[in-house]
Amino acid sequence: MKSDKEVQTKGYLQVYTGNGKGKTTAAFGLALRAAGAGKKVFIAQFVKGMHYSELDILPSIPGVTLRQYGRGCFIRNKPSEEDVSAARTGLIEAGDILKRGEYDVVVLDEANIALFYGLFSFDELKRILDERGSHVEVVVTGRYAPPQLIEMADLVTEMKEIKHYYSKGVEARSGIEK
Amino acid sequence: MKSDKEVQTKGYLQVYTGNGKGKTTAAFGLALRAAGAGKKVFIAQFVKGMHYSELDILPSIPGVTLRQYGRGCFIRNKPSEEDVSAARTGLIEAGDILKRGEYDVVVLDEANIALFYGLFSFDELKRILDERGSHVEVVVTGRYAPPQLIEMADLVTEMKEIKHYYSKGVEARSGIEK
Repeated sequence: MKSDKEVQTKGYLQVYTGNGKGKTTAAFGLALRAAGAGKKVFIAQFVKGMHYSELDILPSIPGVTLRQYGRGCFIRNKPSEEDVSAARTGLIEAGDILKRGEYDVVVLDEANIALFYGLFSFDELKRILDERGSHVEVVVTGRYAPPQLIEMADLVTEMKEIKHYYSKGVEARSGIEK
Repeated sequence: MKSDKEVQTKGYLQVYTGNGKGKTTAAFGLALRAAGAGKKVFIAQFVKGMHYSELDILPSIPGVTLRQYGRGCFIRNKPSEEDVSAARTGLIEAGDILKRGEYDVVVLDEANIALFYGLFSFDELKRILDERGSHVEVVVTGRYAPPQLIEMADLVTEMKEIKHYYSKGVEARSGIEK
């Protein structure tokens, strides 16, 4: 159990999970808000690596850095060696960023999916989270957040799909979904 | 029931609701993504009116316009005449923006809360939504989305609070919650 003092001084661990739309966009909206307050933000995107429209604008926002550790497409069946290698590079680099504490907010986008596919283990993720600078706020996104991560998080939101036009056969559109 | 053709050509109505964190930030993340794709975005913030850190940075993003139609604080008990008047101004201005169709994406942030407090009626909101330019994508956020709105929406995500540090007595922090 954390003391009140620790709760006040430590950066929080936030988790956005669930099957609904809005997990990554909420994390990016938070990045925008943090940057607006003069904070430094690092976004590590796991699994993904394809083009998203926000990537054209995020680097122009002062204080925001984004790196992708994926192969340009989602994993369909079994992850390849390249998928594993890209994710592990991300884990090492993000771990370094978290430890050095130069960034106030670190987003580990789709890290839950990386866990889901076994690209790295929960214990490996936990280690870099535990070693973070005490003021560093972390946001972990992606479906299938494991129970241990929910247990250790300070804030967890489940984005729950109530209705989605994908089920009508609509494809992802530039500027809306990608 | 919409035909496939209508589904393909019309801008969608998205709703982010629920008691969890991430509704407004997801809408703002979407605004960022849309702006990154060269789209024009209009954000109408109802009820709110206080300072949020993203407000320092959003106006610097090409293509994004934001207007606030609130009084600088949340409504605690009964809305005042000023609350009603600010919201109604917003409804008229947003309706005009939706109808003219100059903006590709229109966010009606906390419009659900405006409905909840009776600042305007669901029928009034429905009218401006129905009259929107056919390509205009709309995002409505806020707790307590009414069933009629969910019924007419194309995409609905419920942001569900699983765990929140507010319950530990932590106050909203600059750059994270505001």
